[in-house]
Amino acid sequence: MWRASVLTLFPGMFPGPLGLSLAGDALARGVFSIETHDIREHGLGRHRAVDDAPAGGGPGMVLRADVLAAALDAVAPRSDARPRFLMSPRGARLTQALARDLAAGAGVVLVCGRFEGVDERVIEGRGLTEISIGDYILSGGEIAAMTLLDACVRLLPGVMGKAESGGDESFETGLLEYPHYTRPREWEGRAIPPVLLSGDHARVRAWRDAEALRLTRERRPDLVEDRAGASPGSPPQRPRG
Amino acid sequence: MWRASVLTLFPGMFPGPLGLSLAGDALARGVFSIETHDIREHGLGRHRAVDDAPAGGGPGMVLRADVLAAALDAVAPRSDARPRFLMSPRGARLTQALARDLAAGAGVVLVCGRFEGVDERVIEGRGLTEISIGDYILSGGEIAAMTLLDACVRLLPGVMGKAESGGDESFETGLLEYPHYTRPREWEGRAIPPVLLSGDHARVRAWRDAEALRLTRERRPDLVEDRAGASPGSPPQRPRG
Repeated sequence: MWRASVLTLFPGMFPGPLGLSLAGDALARGVFSIETHDIREHGLGRHRAVDDAPAGGGPGMVLRADVLAAALDAVAPRSDARPRFLMSPRGARLTQALARDLAAGAGVVLVCGRFEGVDERVIEGRGLTEISIGDYILSGGEIAAMTLLDACVRLLPGVMGKAESGGDESFETGLLEYPHYTRPREWEGRAIPPVLLSGDHARVRAWRDAEALRLTRERRPDLVEDRAGASPGSPPQRPRG
Repeated sequence: MWRASVLTLFPGMFPGPLGLSLAGDALARGVFSIETHDIREHGLGRHRAVDDAPAGGGPGMVLRADVLAAALDAVAPRSDARPRFLMSPRGARLTQALARDLAAGAGVVLVCGRFEGVDERVIEGRGLTEISIGDYILSGGEIAAMTLLDACVRLLPGVMGKAESGGDESFETGLLEYPHYTRPREWEGRAIPPVLLSGDHARVRAWRDAEALRLTRERRPDLVEDRAGASPGSPPQRPRG
């Protein structure tokens, strides 16, 4: 079983959307597990404080190194070989290649930050790899953790049907996916492109390849440039730590 | 009130993690609302079918144009000026600039796909803008919608305290954020950098700026290149539709 351990101040957020649909079925069938751990259980004093003011001043509060280290040590001792990530906009970006890599492993340990940030020393001292789901700021790491988990879980053996396991999907080919059509044949005066109804598989394939390239050039020229290089997509980013 | 309307096959996923913490408080105080609409209510026949096989063959199922158009027309008539997004890995990427733009508006209409994709004709016919939260594939658009909503909601007036409204945050300055430290002064032999304890605000500022630049160069050289150009970050992407 693929094991996810999530450290958070809001354990009640999990499994949340991962408890339904594709991930929810996989969870119910025991394909993977999500254990949530409340960082506050390791908080200090009567009020179980987990944060303090930033050294050097500035807005917000910083999650303490000692508190988070205690939580991590309780959840994932050093012998636990799963990669450990801190969900953070400062991290390397999550990619489909990394999701595939992680899905092929034993699971992940995910730390969800809140507040202004996390004391840098626990990131170093506990070998956390910062990982970002995109160039925007969230109110905490929980939805980012769900994103990473959903991207991995759907790739676990037996979660998607073989038919859906998607070699044509965006990023798997290094390109965005071609447009899709289904019944009815005409809708509001818009017709399905005739080639798709031709029954000629080679022509369908050629049309889809051309459309994927056109769309990618139009919307994500950066991906076409990457592709012109040595590898068909980005090289897999191996998690450290 | 900032209004989000979400079209999904899994309305039970909402508000989910957005019902707690910062977003949950804002939701309870009426700063924003999330209305979910079950696409299946507009499904066809006794089984309320919403999808069909892809024209031209291939794996998976495609969400029908007529069904999704009926759902959209019921939720957001053409007079509704809010931007309409389809959460999709084929879209332009969500950025902090776009989140700021959207937070300054009246709200959003979000369509969460499932299955292999959505019939291209409804994307065109109903003026949906495809938007992606990152270069990876999820099992559906719901967690992506939560990501977009969380990024917007924290920017709504009165959601974050003034102190936290974060001009230093990653992407707001065009750089990743500098490292944070808090008490204790020493932890497991690791000390807070002395400059942060100096009380010299100008030196603290200079150290933080240098660290932000160093981290960004190390982890995200693409952001430093962008910054060297005309604008301090990416230009705001205005939603179409």
